[in-house]
Amino acid sequence: MANMNGDHGHAAVCPLYHRAVELIGRRWTGAILRALLDGETRFSDLTQVVPGLSDRLLSERLKELETEGIVTRTVFPEIPVRIEYTLTEKGRALGDVMDAIGNWAHDWLAPDALVSAPEEPCLPGADQERDVPEAVPAGRA
Amino acid sequence: MANMNGDHGHAAVCPLYHRAVELIGRRWTGAILRALLDGETRFSDLTQVVPGLSDRLLSERLKELETEGIVTRTVFPEIPVRIEYTLTEKGRALGDVMDAIGNWAHDWLAPDALVSAPEEPCLPGADQERDVPEAVPAGRA
Repeated sequence: MANMNGDHGHAAVCPLYHRAVELIGRRWTGAILRALLDGETRFSDLTQVVPGLSDRLLSERLKELETEGIVTRTVFPEIPVRIEYTLTEKGRALGDVMDAIGNWAHDWLAPDALVSAPEEPCLPGADQERDVPEAVPAGRA
Repeated sequence: MANMNGDHGHAAVCPLYHRAVELIGRRWTGAILRALLDGETRFSDLTQVVPGLSDRLLSERLKELETEGIVTRTVFPEIPVRIEYTLTEKGRALGDVMDAIGNWAHDWLAPDALVSAPEEPCLPGADQERDVPEAVPAGRA
């Protein structure tokens, strides 16, 4: 890391940051967190809104997130039994991260992905006022 | 996604967001991006500041990031030849994401990681004023 006075101390990347980015970035985890933030609570709805996610992997990821204290699993003793997955306070605090990723994605990945991208903004906050990026998709400028 | 009037349309997670989070979260990529944002430019320095990262994997990740237009590789025809890796504008725009992840990590992972966490803040901006989290490490309160 280059510091203020120009020395180059090569400080190691923060281990807390590293742990966080690997946790959030684990395959499917980012999408599952986004769906939970958007208010999904049921296993079957989570598989529905994350195309390609298998029951086995969703189950595995939810267990990991429970172990990390990010997700709570609540069983309602009804007939049939009802199970809900919700974010803890620690999980909801990831909202800023998810929003930053969504903003970057819309600013910088959309030109490559126009063919498959939906017409309307697909993230909460995607239509909020923010800095307009320099790059615009060819044909849209 | 639960919308404003309480309907529950189960909108799919945005594919752009999904692509972004999987890209950033690929094993080692988050740490490499952090090091590049912090000003590291040389292959050997990147392996130094990301403990456990092998030359083979760093090479692979840098190639992926080049392909994505996030990293530029510049060869300076000197003797010995000098190669520098720097972030493009698209790559630098990930700064907000990296900062959000770092803030979350310091707020929510530190209590579990006190043993290995360094005493001083290890992320640029980690000592900036922001909301104080509710959770404090046991023994520190």
